[in-house]
Amino acid sequence: MDTTQVAAQVTELAYALDTFYFLVMGALVMWMAAGFTMLEAGLVRAKNTAEILTKNVGLYSIACIMYMLCGYAIMYPGAFEGGVFQSLSTMGSGLLTTSDNAAADVIASGGETYYSNLSDFFFQVVFVATAMSIVSGAVAERMKLWSFLAFAVVLTAVIYPVQGFWNWGGGFLTESFGYFDFAGSGTVHLCGAAAALAGVLVLGPRKGKYGPGGQINAIPGCNLPLAALGTLILWLGWFGFNGGSELKVSDVGEANSVALVFVNTNMAAAGGLVFALLLSRFWFGKADLTMALNGALAGLVAITADPLSPSPLAATLIGAVGGLIVVASIVSFDKIKIDDPVGAISVHGVVGIWGVMAVLFTNGDATAVGQIVGVASIFAWAFLASLAVWFILKKTVGIRVSEEEEYEGVDIGECGLEAYPEFTSAE
Amino acid sequence: MDTTQVAAQVTELAYALDTFYFLVMGALVMWMAAGFTMLEAGLVRAKNTAEILTKNVGLYSIACIMYMLCGYAIMYPGAFEGGVFQSLSTMGSGLLTTSDNAAADVIASGGETYYSNLSDFFFQVVFVATAMSIVSGAVAERMKLWSFLAFAVVLTAVIYPVQGFWNWGGGFLTESFGYFDFAGSGTVHLCGAAAALAGVLVLGPRKGKYGPGGQINAIPGCNLPLAALGTLILWLGWFGFNGGSELKVSDVGEANSVALVFVNTNMAAAGGLVFALLLSRFWFGKADLTMALNGALAGLVAITADPLSPSPLAATLIGAVGGLIVVASIVSFDKIKIDDPVGAISVHGVVGIWGVMAVLFTNGDATAVGQIVGVASIFAWAFLASLAVWFILKKTVGIRVSEEEEYEGVDIGECGLEAYPEFTSAE
Amino acid sequence: MDTTQVAAQVTELAYALDTFYFLVMGALVMWMAAGFTMLEAGLVRAKNTAEILTKNVGLYSIACIMYMLCGYAIMYPGAFEGGVFQSLSTMGSGLLTTSDNAAADVIASGGETYYSNLSDFFFQVVFVATAMSIVSGAVAERMKLWSFLAFAVVLTAVIYPVQGFWNWGGGFLTESFGYFDFAGSGTVHLCGAAAALAGVLVLGPRKGKYGPGGQINAIPGCNLPLAALGTLILWLGWFGFNGGSELKVSDVGEANSVALVFVNTNMAAAGGLVFALLLSRFWFGKADLTMALNGALAGLVAITADPLSPSPLAATLIGAVGGLIVVASIVSFDKIKIDDPVGAISVHGVVGIWGVMAVLFTNGDATAVGQIVGVASIFAWAFLASLAVWFILKKTVGIRVSEEEEYEGVDIGECGLEAYPEFTSAE
Repeated sequence: MDTTQVAAQVTELAYALDTFYFLVMGALVMWMAAGFTMLEAGLVRAKNTAEILTKNVGLYSIACIMYMLCGYAIMYPGAFEGGVFQSLSTMGSGLLTTSDNAAADVIASGGETYYSNLSDFFFQVVFVATAMSIVSGAVAERMKLWSFLAFAVVLTAVIYPVQGFWNWGGGFLTESFGYFDFAGSGTVHLCGAAAALAGVLVLGPRKGKYGPGGQINAIPGCNLPLAALGTLILWLGWFGFNGGSELKVSDVGEANSVALVFVNTNMAAAGGLVFALLLSRFWFGKADLTMALNGALAGLVAITADPLSPSPLAATLIGAVGGLIVVASIVSFDKIKIDDPVGAISVHGVVGIWGVMAVLFTNGDATAVGQIVGVASIFAWAFLASLAVWFILKKTVGIRVSEEEEYEGVDIGECGLEAYPEFTSAE
Repeated sequence: MDTTQVAAQVTELAYALDTFYFLVMGALVMWMAAGFTMLEAGLVRAKNTAEILTKNVGLYSIACIMYMLCGYAIMYPGAFEGGVFQSLSTMGSGLLTTSDNAAADVIASGGETYYSNLSDFFFQVVFVATAMSIVSGAVAERMKLWSFLAFAVVLTAVIYPVQGFWNWGGGFLTESFGYFDFAGSGTVHLCGAAAALAGVLVLGPRKGKYGPGGQINAIPGCNLPLAALGTLILWLGWFGFNGGSELKVSDVGEANSVALVFVNTNMAAAGGLVFALLLSRFWFGKADLTMALNGALAGLVAITADPLSPSPLAATLIGAVGGLIVVASIVSFDKIKIDDPVGAISVHGVVGIWGVMAVLFTNGDATAVGQIVGVASIFAWAFLASLAVWFILKKTVGIRVSEEEEYEGVDIGECGLEAYPEFTSAE
Repeated sequence: MDTTQVAAQVTELAYALDTFYFLVMGALVMWMAAGFTMLEAGLVRAKNTAEILTKNVGLYSIACIMYMLCGYAIMYPGAFEGGVFQSLSTMGSGLLTTSDNAAADVIASGGETYYSNLSDFFFQVVFVATAMSIVSGAVAERMKLWSFLAFAVVLTAVIYPVQGFWNWGGGFLTESFGYFDFAGSGTVHLCGAAAALAGVLVLGPRKGKYGPGGQINAIPGCNLPLAALGTLILWLGWFGFNGGSELKVSDVGEANSVALVFVNTNMAAAGGLVFALLLSRFWFGKADLTMALNGALAGLVAITADPLSPSPLAATLIGAVGGLIVVASIVSFDKIKIDDPVGAISVHGVVGIWGVMAVLFTNGDATAVGQIVGVASIFAWAFLASLAVWFILKKTVGIRVSEEEEYEGVDIGECGLEAYPEFTSAE
């Protein structure tokens, strides 16, 4: 075997490693769907549990299908020049083929083409599901199931991909403004939270949440072990979310980068959890578990915009600030009567903005203008486009269940079954 | 370092990557044990939960031990020529050694030997556990624990390995009939479902399931979040089940194949879920969560026979048809009073057959004769052999708990404890 | 491209594979945090569930932060010569940097430097969390939350790292006594169990556990599906725990070793589960699920000291003996009124000792003196140091909740919320 042949084999092997890495990271992100499902099932009441489960598994499936049908093509038009995916104009004929990079092209590219196109699609498709998962928690316990799923179709087919293109597909945010958002504190989390906020505003709070005299009634989640499990699933899945966003692992520098991303992701979550727990202890006098869990998620959201520049200590602090912000934010939203049963808008939206801005502290390439324009554009687009869709749904099929159904629980009304038929006394 | 040395190092590195890939995929398949456990625990009643948990963790352990002791040797007799595993004839002396492929042999093989024999054993051993897991759900809530575990011994030691050999070990199905079943829609899923069907027929339905006037009483599962979690665990684990069945990842073509398998597996599950949900909406008027979950599993089973030929859109459709079939099948089995509490026979058996036959639409190498002979052989063997074992168990130790124990719940009778002692009122 | 360049690329690729392997294994170990959390949440009563969840997610976060701040530097002082991490003396200034091995140094090292330093930190940091997780179960249902978290600070910052250095950091156990403990049956599991035992002795048993006439009252766990889920999560995570402890996968010999570790880890768990189930059947007359789960964990702890020397059959037997020991140990501790709600001291301590000693049967390099000195040193240090810390905590802030709070449940008292507000009737 001569040197050229060996070099070609090494190039193929590197391609295989990068593809395999991409797929493993993508599988971890898919696992986040289970995290959101468990988190939300734990934080709603028993009578609304089967429906939130249905929404979560339904939105994940819809996200995969719609992103395949058109979302991916909108977000990454460049991917279609290579011929792997049919362009939008030929969508009707073939949609997706099974072809991928030829070995000869990979070798000839000298490392330019370094992973399977389908592995990229897999990684991206689980990202769009993550964005949509953020919405379901915020609108829980009162929204019609099928209207929600109809919204999922639009968000995953169009709303998310359009602004995703701005950052990762070669759009104006990165090209013209130098917006820096490594794995999507803005592009994924703020986008989802903005859509959720629009939904909550159109939908209104749950019955009984806000009393007549400005009083706020706590509506506790029915199954906190599931909420804790969901948080830990998300924590694990986030190693894929951030770790896979490096896109490559096959040389010393890239491997070091992925390792740093893993460490920083973990430290930010730890920092967020500890500081949210401490703040809730000092503020409320108790170690509020749900705040601690949201603190961990806030740490994860905060570090997502740049897990590659901070030292592990700095990552811990970025996460810690996220943990403090999320507690204050959840309390504040309740004061202005924006009812978000799981705190999703605070975790993903408010802390998402913090994450984007925190990049300025550790990454010299980011600019204040770029980050602010990014936050403003993403929020404006996702919020306004979602608002329009929610409004159309409200005026046509309706988005809110009847008062009687809300009282009875949406499980019976929407799904025709109960999540825990033996554990709760029939009311 | 000269070129030969570098080439040898590259061969070793490829072997390491393929072995590591195999182990990661195997770990994901092992994780499916948790998926079946949660799914079944969610779909039975509270009073039978601890027992179904015990059956699931017990059968997994038994599967590992029996497959090591003799199942692997029956299914892959060729693996023993290399000397890694002792052949059946020398089983009494050493059973398994720690030896594996020598580096020199790997290098000399020029890529023919490309993964650790023990990693193959690991991957295969978690497959047999999957097949056995299918049985536990179908016979839930009325079968004696120890009789079930005795059946697990026979299925994992003999019944599964014999027909596994026909497909993957060099037996007549592939050699003489060109049976094509990539990851086991037939070999794993139909086999498990046929064993389950035999068990259900010998065992009879649960007390109270079918009323005197032909009426069918729904017996709802007690903990649907666990059922949803189990489904999502299985979805994740299936990336290993199908993705690992490619057996190799270390060059461009193989890496592309594994990526396509991941994408198609995901899309088929999504298609199955959405179409089962839609059908249940139109048929029953409600978005039945348990049907949606079974739809996702049906999509996964359907694509398992060939996740490598269809385009992602075709995979979605193959899964979608699986989702439609499973709803109709579950309803039909109830009509003929075959009581399968979790729908396992429909998901893995009926849809398993669909998966094997669907290969004909996208894979030109498969033949109708080959696929039909495969389905018929696997079903006949697994069903008849299982029927014999169930019958012997019934006539000797008995397989059904007493009527009183069934009413009281098998947890107390078999395990001496309750799964949820504080959540259910003592009846 | 000449041979030297290709060889350099191969070295980089091997580094990338080993680093990626390390990160994936570390992610699996992180997942064990979810395993302990679910296991313990399943085995306590409903009224103490939110608090045990808070302790588990809190201790994991604290472990990560403290090990970053000083634990890692204490345990691996050698890691700081390379300049990646600041040494303890310069801790105040930078703590951790983002620098890692330079590609040129990796290539020049000729394979000596084969993974990212940060990937090593990530793997180690999840290990210390595992050790601390062992403690929370043993002291459940009666210890003050904040005292527990204070103890977690000390254990993860100092107690664990000091004895960890003795084994893995270049300390006297390996250097002078040839102590052999591959992945930490002693260094991790016995250490955690010794700390737990000290805590239980200072704390005393739960109210009502032991009656006046020597009678032992069973206090059943409230949610056994969670306990089963936790066990299966730990089983999966243990592939990372043991499999990652090989530290390298990138050649034929190393890949074979990792495969053997995976197989043996799985077989030991299976052996432990089956034999614990059988023993509980013969001893108590019932198939006790909690004993079976502890049997699986015992098998995993037992094989951890050396998953690389035994054949798979021997590994099954080592695990099986662990499964028998754990049942006897749990019964015995209850007889001497040492109240360990989840059996953690038996699983990790008693069986941890068995694991360390079992090395002598299959590994010719280990000596009885080395193993005994290892067990004695680790136990003495961890037990006495922990005892001192527990005692100081008791005398200052107190470690036990009030009798009234214990009766009411620590969830309300410590966390201000309930884990299952709708499932349990208000007492």
